[in-house]
Amino acid sequence: MVVKLTEEQRAEQLKPLFASGWTMVEGRDAIYKEFLFGDFNEAFGFMTRVALKADKMDHHPEWFNVYNKVQVTLATHDCGGLSERDVKLAQFLDKVAAVTK
Amino acid sequence: MVVKLTEEQRAEQLKPLFASGWTMVEGRDAIYKEFLFGDFNEAFGFMTRVALKADKMDHHPEWFNVYNKVQVTLATHDCGGLSERDVKLAQFLDKVAAVTK
Repeated sequence: MVVKLTEEQRAEQLKPLFASGWTMVEGRDAIYKEFLFGDFNEAFGFMTRVALKADKMDHHPEWFNVYNKVQVTLATHDCGGLSERDVKLAQFLDKVAAVTK
Repeated sequence: MVVKLTEEQRAEQLKPLFASGWTMVEGRDAIYKEFLFGDFNEAFGFMTRVALKADKMDHHPEWFNVYNKVQVTLATHDCGGLSERDVKLAQFLDKVAAVTK
């Protein structure tokens, strides 16, 4: 069963994500980040790597793309808020984005 | 140079798209359609085929995805509204969606 992050987990695991540009979504227990790339090739390459990972985790992002921009929102449907899955996927996104540009 | 669709072109080329589920976006000269698939594999497979086509056309969609849902908005930045590129890409999306499900 998937459970929401505890206050202790939030303090420890979300802090580095906020430092890398993730923010809380207003009115939702979810995190958001906008990624900008050089062009569509880079943006969709990034999305493809994330898609394979997300489907393997069975944990999928809410995301919007136009040209070189990818806006991502992460939350866990099964627990109605942020879980460790979101932290893991956010860390993966940051890792892939860093080597895509 | 890319030009906006004429009234005659709109009557002829947009009508079949409206019949297949495309709608005008409120307040914008743009068209929108939501595609629903069986799962994320199908949805992202659809997006990947569209991405390759779009990049070859150098004409990119504005799109949102979560799990099996893909919401697409098409417009042409260079002419500030709908052009033949949008009609061509919309027809391609419908064709690919029809064989993806």
